[in-house]
Amino acid sequence: MHAKHNIGILGATGMVGQRFIQLLENHPWFNITWLAASDRSSGKPYGEAVRWKLDTPLPAHIAAMPVSPATPQGAPSIIFAALDSDIARDMEPKFAAAGCAVISNSSAFRMQADVPLVIPEVNADHLALLEEQSWRKSSGGYIVTNPNCSAIGLVLALKPIEERFGIRAIFVSTMQAVSGAGYPGVPSLDILGNVVPFIRNEEEKLEEETGKLLGKLHGKHITHLDAKVSAHCNRVAVEDGHTESVSIQLRTPATREQILDAWREFQPLRGMNLPTAPDQPVEFDSAVDRPQPRLDRMRGRGMASVTGRLRPCSLLDWKFTVLSHNTIRGAAGAALLNAELLAAQGKLQPAGAAQSATGARA
Amino acid sequence: MHAKHNIGILGATGMVGQRFIQLLENHPWFNITWLAASDRSSGKPYGEAVRWKLDTPLPAHIAAMPVSPATPQGAPSIIFAALDSDIARDMEPKFAAAGCAVISNSSAFRMQADVPLVIPEVNADHLALLEEQSWRKSSGGYIVTNPNCSAIGLVLALKPIEERFGIRAIFVSTMQAVSGAGYPGVPSLDILGNVVPFIRNEEEKLEEETGKLLGKLHGKHITHLDAKVSAHCNRVAVEDGHTESVSIQLRTPATREQILDAWREFQPLRGMNLPTAPDQPVEFDSAVDRPQPRLDRMRGRGMASVTGRLRPCSLLDWKFTVLSHNTIRGAAGAALLNAELLAAQGKLQPAGAAQSATGARA
Amino acid sequence: MHAKHNIGILGATGMVGQRFIQLLENHPWFNITWLAASDRSSGKPYGEAVRWKLDTPLPAHIAAMPVSPATPQGAPSIIFAALDSDIARDMEPKFAAAGCAVISNSSAFRMQADVPLVIPEVNADHLALLEEQSWRKSSGGYIVTNPNCSAIGLVLALKPIEERFGIRAIFVSTMQAVSGAGYPGVPSLDILGNVVPFIRNEEEKLEEETGKLLGKLHGKHITHLDAKVSAHCNRVAVEDGHTESVSIQLRTPATREQILDAWREFQPLRGMNLPTAPDQPVEFDSAVDRPQPRLDRMRGRGMASVTGRLRPCSLLDWKFTVLSHNTIRGAAGAALLNAELLAAQGKLQPAGAAQSATGARA
Amino acid sequence: MHAKHNIGILGATGMVGQRFIQLLENHPWFNITWLAASDRSSGKPYGEAVRWKLDTPLPAHIAAMPVSPATPQGAPSIIFAALDSDIARDMEPKFAAAGCAVISNSSAFRMQADVPLVIPEVNADHLALLEEQSWRKSSGGYIVTNPNCSAIGLVLALKPIEERFGIRAIFVSTMQAVSGAGYPGVPSLDILGNVVPFIRNEEEKLEEETGKLLGKLHGKHITHLDAKVSAHCNRVAVEDGHTESVSIQLRTPATREQILDAWREFQPLRGMNLPTAPDQPVEFDSAVDRPQPRLDRMRGRGMASVTGRLRPCSLLDWKFTVLSHNTIRGAAGAALLNAELLAAQGKLQPAGAAQSATGARA
Repeated sequence: MHAKHNIGILGATGMVGQRFIQLLENHPWFNITWLAASDRSSGKPYGEAVRWKLDTPLPAHIAAMPVSPATPQGAPSIIFAALDSDIARDMEPKFAAAGCAVISNSSAFRMQADVPLVIPEVNADHLALLEEQSWRKSSGGYIVTNPNCSAIGLVLALKPIEERFGIRAIFVSTMQAVSGAGYPGVPSLDILGNVVPFIRNEEEKLEEETGKLLGKLHGKHITHLDAKVSAHCNRVAVEDGHTESVSIQLRTPATREQILDAWREFQPLRGMNLPTAPDQPVEFDSAVDRPQPRLDRMRGRGMASVTGRLRPCSLLDWKFTVLSHNTIRGAAGAALLNAELLAAQGKLQPAGAAQSATGARA
Repeated sequence: MHAKHNIGILGATGMVGQRFIQLLENHPWFNITWLAASDRSSGKPYGEAVRWKLDTPLPAHIAAMPVSPATPQGAPSIIFAALDSDIARDMEPKFAAAGCAVISNSSAFRMQADVPLVIPEVNADHLALLEEQSWRKSSGGYIVTNPNCSAIGLVLALKPIEERFGIRAIFVSTMQAVSGAGYPGVPSLDILGNVVPFIRNEEEKLEEETGKLLGKLHGKHITHLDAKVSAHCNRVAVEDGHTESVSIQLRTPATREQILDAWREFQPLRGMNLPTAPDQPVEFDSAVDRPQPRLDRMRGRGMASVTGRLRPCSLLDWKFTVLSHNTIRGAAGAALLNAELLAAQGKLQPAGAAQSATGARA
Repeated sequence: MHAKHNIGILGATGMVGQRFIQLLENHPWFNITWLAASDRSSGKPYGEAVRWKLDTPLPAHIAAMPVSPATPQGAPSIIFAALDSDIARDMEPKFAAAGCAVISNSSAFRMQADVPLVIPEVNADHLALLEEQSWRKSSGGYIVTNPNCSAIGLVLALKPIEERFGIRAIFVSTMQAVSGAGYPGVPSLDILGNVVPFIRNEEEKLEEETGKLLGKLHGKHITHLDAKVSAHCNRVAVEDGHTESVSIQLRTPATREQILDAWREFQPLRGMNLPTAPDQPVEFDSAVDRPQPRLDRMRGRGMASVTGRLRPCSLLDWKFTVLSHNTIRGAAGAALLNAELLAAQGKLQPAGAAQSATGARA
Repeated sequence: MHAKHNIGILGATGMVGQRFIQLLENHPWFNITWLAASDRSSGKPYGEAVRWKLDTPLPAHIAAMPVSPATPQGAPSIIFAALDSDIARDMEPKFAAAGCAVISNSSAFRMQADVPLVIPEVNADHLALLEEQSWRKSSGGYIVTNPNCSAIGLVLALKPIEERFGIRAIFVSTMQAVSGAGYPGVPSLDILGNVVPFIRNEEEKLEEETGKLLGKLHGKHITHLDAKVSAHCNRVAVEDGHTESVSIQLRTPATREQILDAWREFQPLRGMNLPTAPDQPVEFDSAVDRPQPRLDRMRGRGMASVTGRLRPCSLLDWKFTVLSHNTIRGAAGAALLNAELLAAQGKLQPAGAAQSATGARA
């Protein structure tokens, strides 16, 4: 049994930061030793700084931890980052430059050419990009990102189909939960009994991240998937769980049974024993009216992409519904699984350069 | 000033029946003289038979009216029908055969070749079909239908575009209000904090009705629109108002401004002074996050189709959001506007055959 | 026909400010000529400064009005004030000192001894207090307030009972709508599928305002009602309309019929023709499960207090449910009705002192 | 290690029946061997008969079990009954007469003098009543009940106070979740954006059950608590978790700290190791705005009564908020804990008479 890795959380008081804490409680590989948030919170015990919004109790030992300033000094060498994009753009490079492995949930660097945008089941090989990062070369640090909460469930469902049949076109219309906007996030007057057919920058992210995630690594570059993607993004009165209506056009024909087989047999992480990986990354539910966020978001402990209603599309080839938990599989769980993959690949122990950087952080 | 037409309501206690009563209160052309519902209600005062669920008061004179048996005997010659499809299939022909003008909201006969499926602004000329009905020929009675609540807002928004540029393909993903399922309808445990990605038969109706509504009358037949339509139908936690994400492919290119012009200039009923017709059948809202059901469903007194977010689609040509009130424009208001159009065309006064039929009803 | 009074709105972009604009559209006595909001909005057209959240359109002529700075210079002599309490405490006295009639919805001065806290149907005589205000004496200006949104429906229902039978004790447990917290107000993550059993300072306001409103004017002072009041305040997932469970102990016994009579016969404003006054200030609904906010909040155009479920209380004497619209009767409509009462009493035309003050404002 | 008890579930397809199945999965003492439901379901595999509405998966071995007819023949000797009251009144006695221990969640027999109405932490001694039942004397069978979902959290919170200080009067106003009405239960049109201030028979049950639960066993009879109880019951848009505003009058004065001590030290089941018993039956949360159903209903795995906001009441002595999970602690978990208590007392192995009855059932 190895010693656990010490990890820190940047943006620990936000909704995704809270999910990190919840998911890391009793984690077999990682141990939270450092929590950072905005200056306003710095110095307070975490339990006072946070407005805990999850339905499991805040662990007492976490509540008692002091909130650290959000600087690399004193931070551990593995950082889970749950920052707003604007702040991440400035702050994550500082940690990477100081030798930290920054496992980021932010959109700030997702589309940067040398930053891996990774779903372990989908494109683990893209992690090779991190060796191209200047931070990696100088300090051993790096930034690895996971996708937007609306992209991850979709891409999990698409990957097994793309592998076997190729995908030429994707239409997706989302119904996204309010927790995706953080806290305080969406005002109740905007969403009670209502739909808001707009989430800033979300359609752009969903369209371009899908292309990168399903792209191929050629040497030091990712060639994006050659497919048209059109997204409509909507907010609905759901606490957690993004539901998406999807139509796809294939490159080679597939029967319904062949698509169901592709989903069922999709087990790319089998045998790796990553603690957060779900047994079945894509779960198909054959009931006529599933998946539904309230009933299905916790499948695979919130890490499964749940599909349903696979049926022919009169315009493209097939259509279906996909659901995933937006703050677990779509955010904190996604980053955690990335970290587990990096750990399994031995990339969470920064080499020489990182050691000195760690020295610099001390 | 003409005398008002006496009208009756079949299915008067349901959600759509209630909307009929609400919309007909103080109507300048129509006067409710007869209310019918299931046997269970028959004989009771309407106020006792109904569970009134609207936020305007049940008019006292309506509350005092007795509920009649649902048979043509004693019914007036103009019938607004708000029946479940199964019941409508059996009952509406009886009224048509007895000489009644049956203005139906049910899906039972919408796709029958000789039954007009009409939105006055879209395909008023299709009313000519009713002269082909055997009921019309024998008794003067007929059945005229309005579309499904999810089709009507969409088709209003598509018509001005189809007229000018032609439409080759349509994608639509709906987020539909619970009132569309009637009362008791959707159990609260199914929809609170949830999305249900399935409404029985709804995708089929939406796809095929769109084709008929945008079709052309050739002699005695409708040629459906030659366009592929693919629908995803979802139920969300909204009381009233269906919101739809739409992508379309045109036959000839159009700029954004040309589409906005088409919507703005769409005034097919101008000058007819139909009391229920909205001033602007398609209202475009330029705000980035509109239309929204809670804020926009009552535009044009619930009769407008509200569009927004017109932007290029990376898969087809253009995409936008459309909203309409599902129990006003999508049901009772739709039937009422059909009746007003028929009245303006002089088709609500059944001729000889109808008179004798009326006699038979007395 | 008199000329309309010109009025201004302080805090015009907030939720209550928006309601003022909605309710004043086509008002027979008042004409909006001045809108003020925070410095951030000042100078912009109102239509750009506001995030309009009501389901009726923002009138075009209002949208085009410039937002003025929130200072008395240039303001009309009648001001509807919809300010947060902190800001009101500083700002309302400036307008009163400048000779304005300040019709305030804020809690800042409600409990001040010389400030009338008024519901026209309940304690119109309390308006005499305003003559004691130093502002009145120096400039002709004054401050008149209406109660908290949770107090007004309750006190309307209690007043007819207090008049006839006396009230010794009051229990009230509220279920309050989110619009009471303004915009952005309550985060959706706090209220979807949830109850928040706490609203800051609300129980205190509800308890003490009830005592003052039902108190007696003795010369220049109000003697508060001699009754114990205990309030529990809760927030629920309702857009508009506060529902309250109430138990009361009487001083002299009353039958159920006597209480219903007291409510029905409560017509203190009859014959005054105040435009915003409801025909029936307290409407009793005899249905077993009413009042309900979604169905009943708009009774009396949002100005009625709707009661129901009157039944014996095993602890005190009687218990019932009361409902009122919190941003109409509980806020903007309350202030507007106060203004109409003041207009009817000739107190909206400041005399000499005010004229010079108006001069000072110009 | 003892063999597990075989148990059966009557009303297995309803909401409470589903909770029984969820809570009994992996239970150390009980083993489901028999599921019964209405005739309509009888003979089908459970997985086909049920509309599973919980957010954990239906266990596969349960899904495959056949649904049995709801008769004692073939049933095990321990029956968890989750029946509507009307059906329970007829059916539960048949099982008791056949020698079964009927652990009932229904209201049918709760107030019958010889039927124990029990919360294990509150009045375990009342179980002695079951020896008075005629069924017990003839066949060994009996009926034991748990309280209404709105009573159980309240009474748990009251018991430690009653023990130490005595309670003279109780005022309670509830905000109850929709799951309390079963499935389909509350129509969504009735509760979205709404409050329904009425639940049939609920106030009566809450008032009278509280008196019996806090009553004293004197020989063969329960003397109800000598306290006035007044309840207001409301339905709100919450999926699970009943929130209640409570005021109480004490017989002897108590400080805030004394009440908090009473709650904290309330550990009547300590040392019994009942698997479903929560560590802390009454959990006080010191945050200003807790408890809240969405965040706190799962405390103690859904078995805790969570209190908060303890503060003086200006009318009685103290007021507070209480929350409990209505389908776990308020229904299936309550019955299960009763069964565990009976098992610990050796009362789940019916003696001779029961054996023969079991024979009769075989």
